[in-house]
Amino acid sequence: MSIRTVVWNEFLHENENEAVRGIYPDGIHATIAAALAVDAGIDVSTATLRDEEHGLPAERLAETDVLLWWGHKAHGEVDDAVVERVAQRVFEGMGLIVLHSGHFSKIFRRLMGAPCSLRWREAGERERMWAINPSHPIANGVGPAIEIANSEMYGEPFLVPEPMETVFVSWYEGGEVFRSGLTYQRGAGRIFYFGSGHETYPIYHDEAVQTVLRNAVHWAYNPARPWTDVSEAPNVPYDRARETLTPKGASLHKEGEEGFR
Amino acid sequence: MSIRTVVWNEFLHENENEAVRGIYPDGIHATIAAALAVDAGIDVSTATLRDEEHGLPAERLAETDVLLWWGHKAHGEVDDAVVERVAQRVFEGMGLIVLHSGHFSKIFRRLMGAPCSLRWREAGERERMWAINPSHPIANGVGPAIEIANSEMYGEPFLVPEPMETVFVSWYEGGEVFRSGLTYQRGAGRIFYFGSGHETYPIYHDEAVQTVLRNAVHWAYNPARPWTDVSEAPNVPYDRARETLTPKGASLHKEGEEGFR
Amino acid sequence: MSIRTVVWNEFLHENENEAVRGIYPDGIHATIAAALAVDAGIDVSTATLRDEEHGLPAERLAETDVLLWWGHKAHGEVDDAVVERVAQRVFEGMGLIVLHSGHFSKIFRRLMGAPCSLRWREAGERERMWAINPSHPIANGVGPAIEIANSEMYGEPFLVPEPMETVFVSWYEGGEVFRSGLTYQRGAGRIFYFGSGHETYPIYHDEAVQTVLRNAVHWAYNPARPWTDVSEAPNVPYDRARETLTPKGASLHKEGEEGFR
Amino acid sequence: MSIRTVVWNEFLHENENEAVRGIYPDGIHATIAAALAVDAGIDVSTATLRDEEHGLPAERLAETDVLLWWGHKAHGEVDDAVVERVAQRVFEGMGLIVLHSGHFSKIFRRLMGAPCSLRWREAGERERMWAINPSHPIANGVGPAIEIANSEMYGEPFLVPEPMETVFVSWYEGGEVFRSGLTYQRGAGRIFYFGSGHETYPIYHDEAVQTVLRNAVHWAYNPARPWTDVSEAPNVPYDRARETLTPKGASLHKEGEEGFR
Repeated sequence: MSIRTVVWNEFLHENENEAVRGIYPDGIHATIAAALAVDAGIDVSTATLRDEEHGLPAERLAETDVLLWWGHKAHGEVDDAVVERVAQRVFEGMGLIVLHSGHFSKIFRRLMGAPCSLRWREAGERERMWAINPSHPIANGVGPAIEIANSEMYGEPFLVPEPMETVFVSWYEGGEVFRSGLTYQRGAGRIFYFGSGHETYPIYHDEAVQTVLRNAVHWAYNPARPWTDVSEAPNVPYDRARETLTPKGASLHKEGEEGFR
Repeated sequence: MSIRTVVWNEFLHENENEAVRGIYPDGIHATIAAALAVDAGIDVSTATLRDEEHGLPAERLAETDVLLWWGHKAHGEVDDAVVERVAQRVFEGMGLIVLHSGHFSKIFRRLMGAPCSLRWREAGERERMWAINPSHPIANGVGPAIEIANSEMYGEPFLVPEPMETVFVSWYEGGEVFRSGLTYQRGAGRIFYFGSGHETYPIYHDEAVQTVLRNAVHWAYNPARPWTDVSEAPNVPYDRARETLTPKGASLHKEGEEGFR
Repeated sequence: MSIRTVVWNEFLHENENEAVRGIYPDGIHATIAAALAVDAGIDVSTATLRDEEHGLPAERLAETDVLLWWGHKAHGEVDDAVVERVAQRVFEGMGLIVLHSGHFSKIFRRLMGAPCSLRWREAGERERMWAINPSHPIANGVGPAIEIANSEMYGEPFLVPEPMETVFVSWYEGGEVFRSGLTYQRGAGRIFYFGSGHETYPIYHDEAVQTVLRNAVHWAYNPARPWTDVSEAPNVPYDRARETLTPKGASLHKEGEEGFR
Repeated sequence: MSIRTVVWNEFLHENENEAVRGIYPDGIHATIAAALAVDAGIDVSTATLRDEEHGLPAERLAETDVLLWWGHKAHGEVDDAVVERVAQRVFEGMGLIVLHSGHFSKIFRRLMGAPCSLRWREAGERERMWAINPSHPIANGVGPAIEIANSEMYGEPFLVPEPMETVFVSWYEGGEVFRSGLTYQRGAGRIFYFGSGHETYPIYHDEAVQTVLRNAVHWAYNPARPWTDVSEAPNVPYDRARETLTPKGASLHKEGEEGFR
């Protein structure tokens, strides 16, 4: 069975900026989707900011296994209800891959619970992404390091929670470092942040980067049935406890009453 | 120098429920504050929901080193702006101790980026909080386990991120378990979640629980100067890079321009 | 391609103790192997302490993807050279599943770098293993909790490093708790510790336990090519650095010389 | 009360190599000890490989709160019994700070359970240690990055377990990166690995490095009473369980019998 994957892209720079359009004439999402489609195990489609509900209505998200997210200048335009819907799907088990400037997207900040801030410089400098564990499912096949001839510098401190795993750390020509491949778990969902991918450089045309993205889709995929009530806090009445119980003491709630929220 | 500590309490149940008032006549915050005040290294005050700005104006938070949070039935009444203000102070280095039903508070959910859901039962059953590392600064002095004669059951799955450290795990008479003492780091701030503390039982009068709270204040305290621009993402121009750089390639931003957000 | 899996068992109690023989007439390894063999994706064989080189010669380990380890009374009889060989294979990418009393095996202690001590009681009491994340690949399909009618109590503190993920936490009739399902990464290899499995009770005949073991084999399997020089610390001469370098300052090592070890 | 701190040094290069002696005429340990002694809260002494029992007899270790370890060419000469003794003290709560080439010391490998391998180059190149969290107790006061004019390159992959916290990540002139400040917990003891410190460069004379070492001593110090039986696995007889228990089922052990090991 294929992994139902949606590549989401803001899709604004490609229409407004000559340099970006030159590199991604059909949009960053099209380039990434084509790179994923090479893998027969991935069933890929795309969505963009200007689509209705940003292309992410509830029905579609319910049938999405892994979502990739690229956004930059219009994070604020993403509807809060859609952000919450995506977060809920991650909790249920949908994988999420956040790309580059998506570090400041609403959805990434929502799931990290942290500032997600960093330092940056757009000078086309060299970036080298070192694989911390080259045998990690996400890094497998790209060798010891990925060389990016021209990149935007993203530098530490990167204000995210300590990750489950540090998969890549980047070196920059200008003297900075950046933890550029990080994994997280939220509820039943796996999250991968990948740092490289500035829109004025052809980074998503790079073969090694494309391998990482394909790998990440497989890694983020959770085949378990969606955990749809993951955010509920059900009461377990005393007479349905697994051990025999006799209620004692005072009580706020009447039996069967819902909890506060 | 003392640790400037604020105990925040919703302070509603104590006014509305006879049983709760009997246990905490001056409010849960008063009992906790008295327990902390025993420690000469802690300088304690209180704040409640009905105070102006919930008692947490920016000036006061700026002078708070550690904040304790107890809320239950009125999480929704806490102003989003105050929640964001508290989150920002945690990122800057303020310690935060979230108590019991605070698992569903806006501030805890904001910082966890996760559902924070759990199972629960109010049957006055026995709880036993086992110290996973009895030499941890937070557990030090309470022995192998804290016995709570009557407690509200909080059961797994508890939908929070994998913690930095698991400090306590609770056993319940009815057959459940709960990771009841968990530590997190967000930005420069340390967070401790402590599970026990239902308002219809005298849990905050327990000596071992009071020891944990005092310990937690010391653990959560970060003496470093507040990192006030922790959420900023400053540009580092190429001519201020630590290594000599010559800009290359296309660029989205003009020099000196701010990043998108 | 099938996952080449070896079930290692000390295989002493089954020969010496009537009760154990009654439950596992062909040995614990045979029961576990049969449970794994149900899965067409797992290619299973067994090895025991009294086999030559404990059944784990280098050639066999080189062709093993996942190793399960059950030992109890004869940890000390396991040859240090074999332990080191197994550790090296884990670093290269072999998965390792350590069962029950294997917490004190040489190989587990070698890989944890910690005491691996715990509390215990053999009273046939009830154990309930709660899934912390029921959608985790290892817990998938076993429901909210696994009920073990008769179990040996293993209690906290369990002196292991903070895990990558806490998969199960157990409740015991006698009042203790135990983190009974824990994941770790060492080099390219994944490790899963599973607590339940005392030899005087028919625990490995339990369907849910068998599901966990099958799941764990899949989870622990790393399809990447073995990282055979994972323990080497190669010199990178200045003229093979990725950036142009001119050597400066004093030096201990002559060029091409190996590092100290 | 002062933190009783011992600086351990192999102390061989300083006697055998002109360049090293020029930088550390009284040994690396003397320079580090002097840097620590500036802090009135640290009570410092030294020990070296050629001292009897390497200067670490049991009585002295029992009165040591934090141990710093510098070794390079003679890791193999350190007696296994002393290594085990140090490991046991870490489990009991002693802090351990492992420096530079100590990544391959017996004690660090013992506690990591991992290869601890890395890449290296001795070319006197520039290193820049970026603080991942400049408000972390260990990084506090050193600014955004520590500049080391001449350093030995240590490069990823560094084969250690995922740390509790990544405190520093280093940038190297030759193009590599390295996680050069990592924290771990083993039993009751805290461990800090600090990467920089090659003996042919005056790195321990650097003020910021000295600040890190002083900070690390405070961070690693555990004031709790030593957990002397941390490695024991005591039986908890059924009649001393916290809940009333009636033994059931078969049993391997007679009552009061010790566990296998």
